[in-house]
Amino acid sequence: MKTIAAFQASFAAYLKENRFDKEPVNLYEPVNYIMDLGGKRIRPVLVLLAHSLFKDDHAPALPAALAVEIFHNFSLVHDDIMDEAPVRRGKATIHQKFGLPAGILSGDVMLIYAYQFLARSKPETVIPDLMKVFNEIAIEVCEGQQMDMDFEQDRDCNLSLYLQMIEGKTAALIGGSLELGAIVADAPESDLFHLRSFGRKLGVAFQLQDDFLDTYGDPEKFGKKPGGDILRNKKTFLVLKARELANAKQLAVLDHWMNGTIHDESAKIKAIMEVFEELQIREKTREAMIRFHTESMEHLGSIAVDSDRKNGLVELSELLFDRDF
Amino acid sequence: MKTIAAFQASFAAYLKENRFDKEPVNLYEPVNYIMDLGGKRIRPVLVLLAHSLFKDDHAPALPAALAVEIFHNFSLVHDDIMDEAPVRRGKATIHQKFGLPAGILSGDVMLIYAYQFLARSKPETVIPDLMKVFNEIAIEVCEGQQMDMDFEQDRDCNLSLYLQMIEGKTAALIGGSLELGAIVADAPESDLFHLRSFGRKLGVAFQLQDDFLDTYGDPEKFGKKPGGDILRNKKTFLVLKARELANAKQLAVLDHWMNGTIHDESAKIKAIMEVFEELQIREKTREAMIRFHTESMEHLGSIAVDSDRKNGLVELSELLFDRDF
Repeated sequence: MKTIAAFQASFAAYLKENRFDKEPVNLYEPVNYIMDLGGKRIRPVLVLLAHSLFKDDHAPALPAALAVEIFHNFSLVHDDIMDEAPVRRGKATIHQKFGLPAGILSGDVMLIYAYQFLARSKPETVIPDLMKVFNEIAIEVCEGQQMDMDFEQDRDCNLSLYLQMIEGKTAALIGGSLELGAIVADAPESDLFHLRSFGRKLGVAFQLQDDFLDTYGDPEKFGKKPGGDILRNKKTFLVLKARELANAKQLAVLDHWMNGTIHDESAKIKAIMEVFEELQIREKTREAMIRFHTESMEHLGSIAVDSDRKNGLVELSELLFDRDF
Repeated sequence: MKTIAAFQASFAAYLKENRFDKEPVNLYEPVNYIMDLGGKRIRPVLVLLAHSLFKDDHAPALPAALAVEIFHNFSLVHDDIMDEAPVRRGKATIHQKFGLPAGILSGDVMLIYAYQFLARSKPETVIPDLMKVFNEIAIEVCEGQQMDMDFEQDRDCNLSLYLQMIEGKTAALIGGSLELGAIVADAPESDLFHLRSFGRKLGVAFQLQDDFLDTYGDPEKFGKKPGGDILRNKKTFLVLKARELANAKQLAVLDHWMNGTIHDESAKIKAIMEVFEELQIREKTREAMIRFHTESMEHLGSIAVDSDRKNGLVELSELLFDRDF
């Protein structure tokens, strides 16, 4: 079994071989810029890990791995425009650095190249199934992004819609990356199902953890001051759960602090966290994420291969989700 | 043989069956809006006509036909943002009506649905070839759009780059639509080549005709005042040919009128058309478009099917290109 680091290195080499050294330069320079920003390459490594459950040589899964990484970066480029984000991974975003048209068009061509790499997978007979799964994920990602933008406008977001949103925006691509790797390996349908479900549940647990840590994370461990989501009135699992459980008085407190302009930031964080405390939001969020994580691990357990082969996926899931907080 | 009108009607019915009546509404309403704006549906009809060269039942080509129409509309939505165009087919553009994020994200999901419809083609064995051709076209369209934007910034555009740009931006999808239809019909490689070449040459002839008519078209017949391209300093075949042939004095005249701000519009049109006249640009443009059109028709003639089956394509090519001007 290859380690995660070995897959990361192999993917980095494949990415380098397939750089976009093409013309027109104004189209492809932004593509290389975002692809070179790096990151942990979680999704392509998931493709390779899933493939390696069934096959020893991971090379046939590299094109699909690159496809999901390009797709992921495409979605970052366009999301950053929609969210008006100036910075990504400590660097200027594409539209910030190269302009809006470059952000749109370079993103578009990345989406197309994602399909082109997907279609380079061998044998050719796997392409229709790869396409089916990839299309469904890609649509879910767009729908998730739209829901996310809708929630920012609309106070009537609820927990069930929120879970659907994070499943689309984050978890679908995690589950999909695993499924694509397994399709290239010609894995049986039942294993595809468990891999997809493992990834989706893990993705939701990961996103809930993200919400949790923004309010309850140890600032020394997580490198940022807690309460950012509260200050930005972000609809997170925490606040939506609180709204679901709140009595009239607690709802009034939430509404007071989450509407209008607040100048005293620490008073706002304190007031909202008091409501969270009364409603045991910390425990309830932790329960939800543990539940998703447990279900995720059950699906991993149900995949019909030797448990030794699953070590890489176990390790990667620990990178994404830490039960110990 | 079905007529063009019959194919248009059949395509309209298929489009209606496949409306985007989905959620989130804010994502799909703009998609339905642009798809409902209509147009002559030239590209999907080309898919169906090419397929009908080889097969009598056109139904198997409908998904690919819808794929190219959705792709074409995706490119309009994103181009309109990049070109800051407020109006398309007499209606507000998507970003104008629904906002920039809607323009970007609805465009993205359309590009994905184009692939999804392409992948619905039967039999499944044609999908890898469809993907290969579609990806290449889609990349060329993006590259063409980038070159077009580059030309607006850069005075050093030349005729050869211009022809490459219009081939990407316009002709590739016309040739590609024909090729996709023929792939669904399992046509032989040599016929794919001639169909693709027929479409590309016709597409270039069509675009040159567009340039020509903007300056030399009969205003009564074409419904707009001539000289729009000249006033907007657009790099067209006419002006690039003129720059290629101009002596120092003629170049100075072109530079004078095409740089800076001109207030006397009719003087500008008159001065530039005088240079065109001296350099016989009208005749030279006509020659070029006739040459592309002739080559196009030669490729159509070389497709190895009964000439009766080609009547629809001949008719459609006459819609796109009128030798009689």
